[in-house]
Amino acid sequence: MSLLAPASSKRVLSDLRELRKLTEDARGAQRVAWGPAWRKARDWFVKKAEKEAGLKVTRDSAGNLWATLPGKTKTSVIVGSHLDSVPGGGWLDGCLGVMAGLEVMRRYAALGEPPPVTLHLVDWADEEGARFGRSLMGSAASAGTLNAKAELSHLTDRAGVKLPDALNENGIRLDQMKKAHREFLALRAAAYLELHIEQGPVLESMKKDVGVVLGTMGVERHQLRFSGQAAHSGAAPLHLRQDAFLAAAAFAIACRELGVALSGKTPRTRVVATCGVVKVEPNFVTAVPGAAEISIDMRALDARVLAKMLAGAKRAAAIAARKYRVSVSMSPLITITPRIFDPTLTGFVKQSVKAAAGSAPELPSGPLHDASEMAGVVPTAMVFAQSSPGISHTRIENSPEPALDRAIRAFLGAVDRTVQHVAQR
Amino acid sequence: MSLLAPASSKRVLSDLRELRKLTEDARGAQRVAWGPAWRKARDWFVKKAEKEAGLKVTRDSAGNLWATLPGKTKTSVIVGSHLDSVPGGGWLDGCLGVMAGLEVMRRYAALGEPPPVTLHLVDWADEEGARFGRSLMGSAASAGTLNAKAELSHLTDRAGVKLPDALNENGIRLDQMKKAHREFLALRAAAYLELHIEQGPVLESMKKDVGVVLGTMGVERHQLRFSGQAAHSGAAPLHLRQDAFLAAAAFAIACRELGVALSGKTPRTRVVATCGVVKVEPNFVTAVPGAAEISIDMRALDARVLAKMLAGAKRAAAIAARKYRVSVSMSPLITITPRIFDPTLTGFVKQSVKAAAGSAPELPSGPLHDASEMAGVVPTAMVFAQSSPGISHTRIENSPEPALDRAIRAFLGAVDRTVQHVAQR
Repeated sequence: MSLLAPASSKRVLSDLRELRKLTEDARGAQRVAWGPAWRKARDWFVKKAEKEAGLKVTRDSAGNLWATLPGKTKTSVIVGSHLDSVPGGGWLDGCLGVMAGLEVMRRYAALGEPPPVTLHLVDWADEEGARFGRSLMGSAASAGTLNAKAELSHLTDRAGVKLPDALNENGIRLDQMKKAHREFLALRAAAYLELHIEQGPVLESMKKDVGVVLGTMGVERHQLRFSGQAAHSGAAPLHLRQDAFLAAAAFAIACRELGVALSGKTPRTRVVATCGVVKVEPNFVTAVPGAAEISIDMRALDARVLAKMLAGAKRAAAIAARKYRVSVSMSPLITITPRIFDPTLTGFVKQSVKAAAGSAPELPSGPLHDASEMAGVVPTAMVFAQSSPGISHTRIENSPEPALDRAIRAFLGAVDRTVQHVAQR
Repeated sequence: MSLLAPASSKRVLSDLRELRKLTEDARGAQRVAWGPAWRKARDWFVKKAEKEAGLKVTRDSAGNLWATLPGKTKTSVIVGSHLDSVPGGGWLDGCLGVMAGLEVMRRYAALGEPPPVTLHLVDWADEEGARFGRSLMGSAASAGTLNAKAELSHLTDRAGVKLPDALNENGIRLDQMKKAHREFLALRAAAYLELHIEQGPVLESMKKDVGVVLGTMGVERHQLRFSGQAAHSGAAPLHLRQDAFLAAAAFAIACRELGVALSGKTPRTRVVATCGVVKVEPNFVTAVPGAAEISIDMRALDARVLAKMLAGAKRAAAIAARKYRVSVSMSPLITITPRIFDPTLTGFVKQSVKAAAGSAPELPSGPLHDASEMAGVVPTAMVFAQSSPGISHTRIENSPEPALDRAIRAFLGAVDRTVQHVAQR
């Protein structure tokens, strides 16, 4: 391995800037999966992979792109992320990991001999789910957790286009998507590594450029409806009201307090709880709300803590309903189990983050990633680059260049360690 | 006055049922001001007034209908309310007072000689403001508190029809509306009396059929905007958030507590506070709300208490904003001073409510009424009939027949006492 060129972020950053120019308009990145800007980004990527690393690029039955560098053994290490973006997204979300993966391939291709293991660079299809609402579509298909027919056939975008038609337009057949799992198993993958921006403010607040991702948090997402009695704001005395909004308000505050109480002091043990959707009826200035709908999205890395949060939220809903003399119903929207990343690979990530950035802070990911799907079928690890501002899904998403440089070098180092480890098994 | 027929609710109830059939559909009463069902109701009313009481009916410059029974003196007593309803409204809101007023006229017309004072029965135009948003339009014009040009000329309904055009369609000219005040002054009114349903649950909760209205509460109505930072529900740790909705929720709960703290134990000293409109942005399940808009509507009969509430709400907004690290702005929507009714007339109402119903519970009105406008320009009093269920602005609005019977007889008695009092001055 001593022949490998030193890890450098130079070409990755230059590629990212080129892609930005190619697929961004005044409102931000427009690489929405299954659309023209996304196809343009992928064509550019395929040409680059073929020309600069001599890779063969194929597409699987779910639309994921695989660029392969055959090694001395068929056992493989996979690197990658996603080129697709939300509408008006940023220049790093997803493509940072794909372009860093291309740098992996370029370095190993330059060795002049096959690498010790086969290397695959994947560009997952439709990670964001921005157009049809189903995120992690390509990686779930590969992991075998997507029931394409049941989950996808009824989905439409805002313009009324059906997802199966959008897939057809891209040469993908919905009824063939389940093949992607078998195709994935044939890759004999021993490891999956992904670099991504944090999309949150944790590393920035710790003044750290690079983070070791412990896993992705489990999610309990539910919709609640508090039902009381609408009444005239002047005519109904406070003690005779059944104000559904006040119950929803008390619930939201209780969930926040619950999250604070169940959080530990480290990023690893922190949990989050969010009421993002709120709707009251009849929504008049002179009407006591007779009904209030509110969503709760709870996340934790520890499944037992997540279960405690859910139980606590249910209690909080019942207490709030009783206090304001209303009824409440709660229906699940989505439940996702926590995905803890592989300890051995995470150890490699830790070493290389420390080498590149001086220290190796650990944190879970609140957002899901393609790595969440991979963690179910292959040893997986992730590296986070600091986001600053600590937001994403907007054109002002950014990471300072020194953070990107260290994160890319840390990722390249982690891949090197992983390749060596897999080759020596 | 001994020649007056005994007070009876019989014809009033029969008239109300007739009007209901004439102007109700499956969703409820549809007598929305300036529309066809409202005109139909008014035509029916005018014919009845002419035929059954021999009254001359005229329309003033603001569209109010005046049915007059000339008395021995030009000094007059006014009775009335409004025939217009909200869309899908009930069978009593407004028209109870107009039809009870017609019974006043029928009884005095049957005397066979002019009553001791002139009697006017008024059907106010557009009390509800249901179509264009400006309530008490006709009575405010008569009271001289309407600035028609500034307040009305820009208003449109949901279909885009301009209020001035809707007025024209009904033969009313916006630039002539200010004449209504002079026309009102020419009536030489000495008293205004109105019967209305309570529209709330207070009398029902006290098991009382009829109530003496002390006045209409003052209103402080404001719109608040809490501004924080939208963020990903998974990526943003609780302690780094600026959740605008949590601040709005804490504000709403604080205002409720403020209302409870400032309320006395009697209906007279109770205050109300309502957050009726709530809107969060971006309103996604996976987004921490970056902004939240919320309305507050506070009411009290005592102006000093109302001022305390407003100060308390401002403090509560600042405290909530600080707690959740967001900013807040508060802009006034409407401020209405409390209107305390005339003590002499209210004394007559008290006597006659006691005579008709056994006891005379006193309560303020939270909702505004045409009587609120009249109280500024003429001694005014009001009678409430119990609502059961204690709601209005819905087709299921109702009052039990015994309550209506006692309330109508109490009202007729209060008018008799007032007429005698005015005649003897």
